[in-house]
Amino acid sequence: MTAKTDPGRFFEDYRLGQTIRHAVPRTLAEGERALYHALYPQRFALNSSDAFALDCGLDGSPMDALAVFHTVFGKTVPDISINAVANLGYAEGRFLRPVFAGDTLRSESEVIGLKQTSSGTSGVVWVRTTGFDQNGDAVLTFVRWVMVRKRDADAPAPETHVPDLATSVAPQDLILPEGLTFADYDFGLAGSPHRAGDYAVGETIDHVDAVTIEEAEHMLATRLWQNTAKVHFDATHRDDGRRLIYGGHVISMARALSFNGLANAQVILAINGGAHANPCFAGDTLRAWSEVLDRADLAPGIAALRLRTVATRGHPFALRDEAGKYLPDVLLDFDYWVAMPG
Amino acid sequence: MTAKTDPGRFFEDYRLGQTIRHAVPRTLAEGERALYHALYPQRFALNSSDAFALDCGLDGSPMDALAVFHTVFGKTVPDISINAVANLGYAEGRFLRPVFAGDTLRSESEVIGLKQTSSGTSGVVWVRTTGFDQNGDAVLTFVRWVMVRKRDADAPAPETHVPDLATSVAPQDLILPEGLTFADYDFGLAGSPHRAGDYAVGETIDHVDAVTIEEAEHMLATRLWQNTAKVHFDATHRDDGRRLIYGGHVISMARALSFNGLANAQVILAINGGAHANPCFAGDTLRAWSEVLDRADLAPGIAALRLRTVATRGHPFALRDEAGKYLPDVLLDFDYWVAMPG
Amino acid sequence: MTAKTDPGRFFEDYRLGQTIRHAVPRTLAEGERALYHALYPQRFALNSSDAFALDCGLDGSPMDALAVFHTVFGKTVPDISINAVANLGYAEGRFLRPVFAGDTLRSESEVIGLKQTSSGTSGVVWVRTTGFDQNGDAVLTFVRWVMVRKRDADAPAPETHVPDLATSVAPQDLILPEGLTFADYDFGLAGSPHRAGDYAVGETIDHVDAVTIEEAEHMLATRLWQNTAKVHFDATHRDDGRRLIYGGHVISMARALSFNGLANAQVILAINGGAHANPCFAGDTLRAWSEVLDRADLAPGIAALRLRTVATRGHPFALRDEAGKYLPDVLLDFDYWVAMPG
Repeated sequence: MTAKTDPGRFFEDYRLGQTIRHAVPRTLAEGERALYHALYPQRFALNSSDAFALDCGLDGSPMDALAVFHTVFGKTVPDISINAVANLGYAEGRFLRPVFAGDTLRSESEVIGLKQTSSGTSGVVWVRTTGFDQNGDAVLTFVRWVMVRKRDADAPAPETHVPDLATSVAPQDLILPEGLTFADYDFGLAGSPHRAGDYAVGETIDHVDAVTIEEAEHMLATRLWQNTAKVHFDATHRDDGRRLIYGGHVISMARALSFNGLANAQVILAINGGAHANPCFAGDTLRAWSEVLDRADLAPGIAALRLRTVATRGHPFALRDEAGKYLPDVLLDFDYWVAMPG
Repeated sequence: MTAKTDPGRFFEDYRLGQTIRHAVPRTLAEGERALYHALYPQRFALNSSDAFALDCGLDGSPMDALAVFHTVFGKTVPDISINAVANLGYAEGRFLRPVFAGDTLRSESEVIGLKQTSSGTSGVVWVRTTGFDQNGDAVLTFVRWVMVRKRDADAPAPETHVPDLATSVAPQDLILPEGLTFADYDFGLAGSPHRAGDYAVGETIDHVDAVTIEEAEHMLATRLWQNTAKVHFDATHRDDGRRLIYGGHVISMARALSFNGLANAQVILAINGGAHANPCFAGDTLRAWSEVLDRADLAPGIAALRLRTVATRGHPFALRDEAGKYLPDVLLDFDYWVAMPG
Repeated sequence: MTAKTDPGRFFEDYRLGQTIRHAVPRTLAEGERALYHALYPQRFALNSSDAFALDCGLDGSPMDALAVFHTVFGKTVPDISINAVANLGYAEGRFLRPVFAGDTLRSESEVIGLKQTSSGTSGVVWVRTTGFDQNGDAVLTFVRWVMVRKRDADAPAPETHVPDLATSVAPQDLILPEGLTFADYDFGLAGSPHRAGDYAVGETIDHVDAVTIEEAEHMLATRLWQNTAKVHFDATHRDDGRRLIYGGHVISMARALSFNGLANAQVILAINGGAHANPCFAGDTLRAWSEVLDRADLAPGIAALRLRTVATRGHPFALRDEAGKYLPDVLLDFDYWVAMPG
């Protein structure tokens, strides 16, 4: 046996300021778009209909923002999280330009923070990942941090550097897709009469619908994004014989469920943060609820809502216990900005 | 919690003559076509091969007629059947023009009948649904009727109006895709030597093949058509913990199985009626058989067969018991017209 | 019930030299490409990225060679193996030109060998199958042989003719895709620094990753290639109630797993042989390992490796017992040529 196989990086392999260019560019096209609709109960009109997108000033229906996120993220897994113990958080995610069928994406990450854990056997790595299209234009940037094992517990600890990250993306940093207009927006076709102004900060919405998750589905999705983490595919990997569902699958499911109550939240502009509060497994029945955290005007007729969407496998509106800990049925707490008619 | 979520309509919300414009237009493209081939054992050459379709005078391979049906139907679910107790029947379904990859579909329904049930807690609603493409051209029209719960049992009953529906679409009302010709039809490539004239009225065909259905598959399909009925996705919705399979999934499966015996039945022209005789669940193994009900000449070299295709999870040729009731293993009794070489 | 259903051919129906033109041409497009990425953990850059393929001198990303193989193979099933007892082997498989999205494939087989078994109830049929595109150009040719039942045990035995087949395709018979160049090959984007010259004949590679297989996935795949063998779809067909997984699904899974260790093995040029050593069932967790069997220079900067890739559901490097019999955990022993940077 030879060493042609990539074992992935361990904590001591990262250097502050290092840039990692991730492998395997990926073309997203009509097939990925259809699969996104098969895998998630996705109904947002801008992603569902070319005709609707043209009426909104775009050149056609863009790829779902989360499909772009999963693809850009997936490429980082062999270099960033293949030896990760935990996926700790996201911050400062911004969608910079829409991706259309036929575009090819690749990813790059810069190491922006390092901190060895007190046990000395692992450390936290912060990276800022950017996705680029075939023209070299950046389409998405986000920060995530993961806890990564050390190969050698005796390897010296790097100097600790914890990056200063924004709690949320500022409204003036949100970038609307070029040409986007809601001037002729058809609320009937979109599925809801509610504009951004109809939502009050603090308002909560039960998205009502629910989906029971199957092994085949989350694996189809996770492979589609070329995410290679063993734990999603190999039933022999964990002691309990269960495959852990890719957290992004839960994000997409929750976002799709949010249509019922947020049908006009057409464009995800930013990911402020996200916690995979508890692991999700096949057989879980997912529900979602959202809370309006903030609102901002972006352009004539276009406003942004900052939303928290929570995925649970239990009763709606579950979140934290008295000690502030996520309840065991909470799977995801996702904080993001969306654009909708103002 | 606020009222942004759409609870759907109840029986007392429908008015005779009312037109409901359904939400979320949907572009069907190469990805949906491929998924149709992955979800169903579909082999009809006209839908399988662009080259074959060009040789039949079309501009390319049309989307499967049932993919069009499911998409147009799916859009009506949140407005028509989300609070339905039962999907009672179909009639007068006609495919008006083929749909090609890239076309965008939306749906509209007119309420053409209302009848409160004797219990006073629900009523039957008849709607005529039409699907339109991005140019506003109608591609499909059909009637269906469902039993819908009342929100308030004390709401007054509407005047009863039961529409007069044809038992089957008359041959002169069948519309062939523009340009369709079987003049250079390649029976070898299509997979069978049998023309319409080789089938006798009353003849029955056992389609031989069988498919065991999985949860992941019917959910992928049902989501692809943006059908939002909870009962297909949420294993906690029914008391028995089983997800009810969308009836249209059984229609597509039976039609695909019918290839073996009806390989030249290239184009579905009309849906005369259909009964979902018993519920279908994951784990069921579907078989199908067909009976030739009628035959008509449509154009030089093109004839129509009126077929009954029955899906069962048991022995072939099961249909009804002595009292005329569908046998428990019968899942679908589907009555439709197809075009084939005359 | 009438005889419109195709029962398939039995051993006595084959004649030496007979050519069988298989039914149902099939267009492969963006949807099939996306599904291939959802079904298999496929990351070879040439198939993943249009931009990468353009940089390698092609007109775009070609369909995965194995998707072409499965499609051409699938068409032969109703005529060759629907009544087969066993799929015995492959030889002399050569990919003759790349297939791009939008191409339509059909298949033809010539009977090149016949040998009745000693029991007299079945016989071995050798066929040379060729896949053609919509222009009539051959894209793939391969030999396979199967044991087929006789309809009538008393039918006379044909004259025995066992074809003389090459152990492996000679390097000078390998055909590179027109225009292929690795002159500007980006090893970083491709995911590995290893050229053909870095691999030693006899070297073995553990591909590390593993995938647990689900019923829904192998059926989606097998239907996509229009393979109609009952045993893959019908849980009631075998006495043990298990669906046998299409051997080609295992080939694709093993090839995709081989990325980790063989990331630059971009193009499959030939299939020298393959044995489906043991049946594969849902629930099996597949691993793969490869052995370098040979190496050849093909063109400036392009070399071929002859590889054996073995799929197992147990420990890596399992192959045969002391008696030379495949170990029970070995599922596939696949011998093929790939092109990679020289």
